[in-house]
Amino acid sequence: MAYQQIKYEVQDHILTITLNRPDKMNAFTHVMMDELIAAFDAADADDNVRAIIVTGAGRAFCAGADLSEGGATFDRAARSDRKTAPLRPNGEVEWSDDAVRDGGGRVTLRIYKCLKPVIGAINGAAVGIGVTMQLPMDIRIASVDARFGFVFARRGIVPEAASSWFLLRIVGISQALEWCYSGRVFPADEALAGRLVSKVVPADELITTARAIAREIVENAAPVSIALIRQQMWRMLGADDPMEAHKVDSRGIYSRGQSADVREGVMSFLEKRPAKFAQTVSKDMPSYFPWWTEREYK
Amino acid sequence: MAYQQIKYEVQDHILTITLNRPDKMNAFTHVMMDELIAAFDAADADDNVRAIIVTGAGRAFCAGADLSEGGATFDRAARSDRKTAPLRPNGEVEWSDDAVRDGGGRVTLRIYKCLKPVIGAINGAAVGIGVTMQLPMDIRIASVDARFGFVFARRGIVPEAASSWFLLRIVGISQALEWCYSGRVFPADEALAGRLVSKVVPADELITTARAIAREIVENAAPVSIALIRQQMWRMLGADDPMEAHKVDSRGIYSRGQSADVREGVMSFLEKRPAKFAQTVSKDMPSYFPWWTEREYK
Amino acid sequence: MAYQQIKYEVQDHILTITLNRPDKMNAFTHVMMDELIAAFDAADADDNVRAIIVTGAGRAFCAGADLSEGGATFDRAARSDRKTAPLRPNGEVEWSDDAVRDGGGRVTLRIYKCLKPVIGAINGAAVGIGVTMQLPMDIRIASVDARFGFVFARRGIVPEAASSWFLLRIVGISQALEWCYSGRVFPADEALAGRLVSKVVPADELITTARAIAREIVENAAPVSIALIRQQMWRMLGADDPMEAHKVDSRGIYSRGQSADVREGVMSFLEKRPAKFAQTVSKDMPSYFPWWTEREYK
Repeated sequence: MAYQQIKYEVQDHILTITLNRPDKMNAFTHVMMDELIAAFDAADADDNVRAIIVTGAGRAFCAGADLSEGGATFDRAARSDRKTAPLRPNGEVEWSDDAVRDGGGRVTLRIYKCLKPVIGAINGAAVGIGVTMQLPMDIRIASVDARFGFVFARRGIVPEAASSWFLLRIVGISQALEWCYSGRVFPADEALAGRLVSKVVPADELITTARAIAREIVENAAPVSIALIRQQMWRMLGADDPMEAHKVDSRGIYSRGQSADVREGVMSFLEKRPAKFAQTVSKDMPSYFPWWTEREYK
Repeated sequence: MAYQQIKYEVQDHILTITLNRPDKMNAFTHVMMDELIAAFDAADADDNVRAIIVTGAGRAFCAGADLSEGGATFDRAARSDRKTAPLRPNGEVEWSDDAVRDGGGRVTLRIYKCLKPVIGAINGAAVGIGVTMQLPMDIRIASVDARFGFVFARRGIVPEAASSWFLLRIVGISQALEWCYSGRVFPADEALAGRLVSKVVPADELITTARAIAREIVENAAPVSIALIRQQMWRMLGADDPMEAHKVDSRGIYSRGQSADVREGVMSFLEKRPAKFAQTVSKDMPSYFPWWTEREYK
Repeated sequence: MAYQQIKYEVQDHILTITLNRPDKMNAFTHVMMDELIAAFDAADADDNVRAIIVTGAGRAFCAGADLSEGGATFDRAARSDRKTAPLRPNGEVEWSDDAVRDGGGRVTLRIYKCLKPVIGAINGAAVGIGVTMQLPMDIRIASVDARFGFVFARRGIVPEAASSWFLLRIVGISQALEWCYSGRVFPADEALAGRLVSKVVPADELITTARAIAREIVENAAPVSIALIRQQMWRMLGADDPMEAHKVDSRGIYSRGQSADVREGVMSFLEKRPAKFAQTVSKDMPSYFPWWTEREYK
């Protein structure tokens, strides 16, 4: 696939997705949305990709929705690419219609389903969808130049991209509300103190730091284990009882326990040598996976 | 409404509710419970109120339940205002009866439903219901003179006011249990380290700090956005899948996107001028709100 | 019961459970699993036990699963104690069969149900099940000599013991994934920074610190309150609405409010003397307890 608004580059099993409209501060468009979803589809299908870094080209990470349509930006009936939902007989919008769906949420729910580790390397301004798209990434690190803003209330709109669900679970309800109420743009060190990012580094060390995190995973971990771990963790955020985790991880230990990867993992440890895992995400996911039914928009 | 045990004062769109029994360290009574619920009802109905501060008069924030009935304080059958639940044929208490309901929980569930930002400004001792009533507030800041105590186990009783649900989600299970097991009273800096409060300030800066937080919201944010954000966030604490957030925020982006407030929000940003939001909570909440059915006591 | 691989010692109402295979770094076995479950059963049934400390003998806390069967360690069909689940007609494993259940999860779900406070005193290496078994403990403190590793991905396996559910709720999704992806072993101060433990102390102060925490509970708190608090808190982690907490704590305030313990708790406070609580977990739990139905493995 030829990407127009992102770059897709794989090196040493690490995919780097770069938001790539530097003259527009990487402002988010429908093209970028489609390309991000396609990139994650491609990454999941490619066993050569074992970790993913997301960053931005130029000064910004992503300055938010592209506002070139001015006051009509968020108005589906007034935009040039007009796409509205039908009305019910009572005049109410048919909320369950696909046209109602927020584009940011399509991206974050796709990242949520990803089978590879996702590292956000936040290089500059990350505002609106520029910050909410980061939330389903597993690990976020920031350059000292990064800044963040949940600016929705200052635009008269609401946080999107399923961010109310994700943000709470990352930074807690009080911090989430404080940032979303005020709508102010804040620097990297405040993001660190509030646990939105786990590390702040000099600008010229951002990508090397992100690659070091990715490389440690690529060099040591079994890809099938990583895919299972990612979904075990994210899906258990919503589980109401630890028995649900016990059911899933029992299946995991039982089935993976009989795998070639586990024999290699244990024997390499006992023999004090690096493990060589042969199993792949495309061929060797256990039969109980996925153990959930994906929730539908309605 | 003429309040007896609280003060209700609005200035510059900021309501300050002051627990006002200073000679009793603002100990909690049924009158105070009714007045707090009435105050939040009044605040939600008044578009002039755009942020709420809760604090205490005198030395204490709230020293807990009024213990003037001594050992009968928590005994509904022995109290002077006797109000007990009927028994089932098998002799068991009819737990679903309204008389069983804890008064602290009536207050916290009312605050939970509030449509305006709520800031706790904790000026002194906050013990028992004095600390649990703070938990559904969005932001808590403390004076250096504040102290906190989840003292229930030392009285032979249990944490109330739905605090088991709220406290976990604010400070985590380990910190919640440590404070509730020991029952000891602890100072403001321990509350800060444990993330119960987000800031500790000198006593004479407490109210000015709380007002500055409130003012930043009042001066910049659209009231309808704030009301939607508050409920998006709190309600998503209990959602089991990010798709639930995607459903709600898609409706929000779609409907708010066509609003006068959003046009103003985007245009004022592009024109680098302050926004003037005209829409109000009393008249302009979108038709999908509320998107949930309030859970009943039973 | 005569324990082979753990020690069970009660002093001053504090039970200390010591993992006791020091020559094997307390590696986890099926015998140890059975003994831990039996120890928690015994502790819950004994009113003389009012707090529990779990620690390890010798240098390690627990170095993980006993690997003496090498590559067959996790393979139920190849292990010497062969125990496999039947197959369904379609050739799929009968996942709901009891033989599929992970042994670590049996232990953590037992700890989860415990009625006494559980303090982990982590004295040394805690790897694999050695760290995941700690997660349902209420409070974890570590010696400076402790180290931790969620090493599953390096063995080709997955995190077990329902740890995906517990770990997220203790350290957050980003930290949980970072540790589980990398699989590296990390020191006590990183565990502290990541909130896996609440305190790090010199090695020779570990047990005294744990006992001081336990003693503060034993000396001040009503045992029935503590048992109710433990379950109120853990069970509310999975509740989707604060109304669920309000239902449970209303029953608690109503029924405990009429108890001898509460009269003593309030009167001793008013009289500024230590409380003497007479009620016990074996005899005096309120009739609404347990308020939940334990989830079954299936």
